[in-house]
Amino acid sequence: MAKYKITICYDGTGYGGWQVQPNSTSIQSLIQKALSTILREETLVTGSGRTDAGVHALGQVAHFETSEPIQIRSVLYSLNGLLPHQIRVLDMTEAADTFHARYSATGKIYHYHLHLDPILNPFTRLYSLDVYHKVDVDLLKNAATCFLGTKDFSAFTNEGHKGSAAINAVRTLQRLDVVTEPGGVRLELEADGFLYKMVRNITGTLLDVCAGLIPLSDIEPIFQSKDRKKAGKTAPPHGLFLVQVHYESNSSKD
Amino acid sequence: MAKYKITICYDGTGYGGWQVQPNSTSIQSLIQKALSTILREETLVTGSGRTDAGVHALGQVAHFETSEPIQIRSVLYSLNGLLPHQIRVLDMTEAADTFHARYSATGKIYHYHLHLDPILNPFTRLYSLDVYHKVDVDLLKNAATCFLGTKDFSAFTNEGHKGSAAINAVRTLQRLDVVTEPGGVRLELEADGFLYKMVRNITGTLLDVCAGLIPLSDIEPIFQSKDRKKAGKTAPPHGLFLVQVHYESNSSKD
Repeated sequence: MAKYKITICYDGTGYGGWQVQPNSTSIQSLIQKALSTILREETLVTGSGRTDAGVHALGQVAHFETSEPIQIRSVLYSLNGLLPHQIRVLDMTEAADTFHARYSATGKIYHYHLHLDPILNPFTRLYSLDVYHKVDVDLLKNAATCFLGTKDFSAFTNEGHKGSAAINAVRTLQRLDVVTEPGGVRLELEADGFLYKMVRNITGTLLDVCAGLIPLSDIEPIFQSKDRKKAGKTAPPHGLFLVQVHYESNSSKD
Repeated sequence: MAKYKITICYDGTGYGGWQVQPNSTSIQSLIQKALSTILREETLVTGSGRTDAGVHALGQVAHFETSEPIQIRSVLYSLNGLLPHQIRVLDMTEAADTFHARYSATGKIYHYHLHLDPILNPFTRLYSLDVYHKVDVDLLKNAATCFLGTKDFSAFTNEGHKGSAAINAVRTLQRLDVVTEPGGVRLELEADGFLYKMVRNITGTLLDVCAGLIPLSDIEPIFQSKDRKKAGKTAPPHGLFLVQVHYESNSSKD
């Protein structure tokens, strides 16, 4: 047995998200199918976490196991040859036996792009959310600071966590920067982990604050309520990018 | 009668190019249809020149005439409301009676994007040509200088000009810069005018030089031959952007 870690970049437009599921094509299933063809054995690929339908990735990480050691360069080349242009495997390295793309992850970085210019941009339409109301960037930056630190993010995750006391919704958001870019801003979020739809719910709540629908002073009570219904809208998937997954330095072989 | 100048940005992917033609949807036809709906009169739109199917524009310019003066802000807003997200009218101004988007143009800037990294990029795949052979950027820059100046570009334009002595193929290429950008380079071309497929034929020839198919010393004889068949391939449309159209400063009203 041998284990490998891969880093993947994809344009999520038109795909059913990372995870294998019925009735849509997932990134995971395409990589599994291509690897199984190349390695001539059923190969399972485990990602660092799901990305929803339409979400993009610059640095998703996954692992897979093979019965025999493989020639990394050759398999990487073949894999990109079989995959559609929308999905690129950027890197493949041998991983420690104990490495697990999901459980070994110590943190992640997500970016959410907001297009604030009233004239839309044909070239960013699939990669940035068009915001149709006025956004006060100073207010946005102020509101962003309310999410920082170690908190229970129950109010900012969707169904599945709600009511299930077994699930720990405490996460540490180390960074939520508002960075100016052409035509708008991007939110840069870094945490030890993210709950289901957490980035999109935080983004939607920030936009509701900027639209005057949620007062800044309500954010803390929303955290306290642990009630998803009190927080803002879920921002759509196409503005979201999984940028990087962090691991301890001992995740590679030797 | 009143005349208006518009500046248009479009993602040419999937469109049949600028010009109205049977069996495909053109940018021009969509703008004409939207304007005719808004102004309640048949409106013709004249562009600075054609862009081929799949070619993009950051600053295409066109003009149209109306029977009565219009409220610019309102028409511009409605126009972007009716047009698909792939096409945005960035600007609309009243034009001098003598202004003509095509005949008044004094020059144009085109960019051609080349992706040189062996690992493709899912996000630039529709806007940059993936070059699969090694490109020596110094050789590319050297070869680019051979195209500069006032020359007969007959060998670098496609059928339609060949043999028709009436058509003057002399153009002045003021600039052909090779600019480094993430993942590759872009060619920036500026001339007093461009012949049909001229940028794509120059780009294809430059790539053939870098691939070792055409010696650098052959470029001048190719110009002399005025024979399209002696020049290099026609580079595909999707790497090409019409960036800017130049006019005399007296093109606007007053």
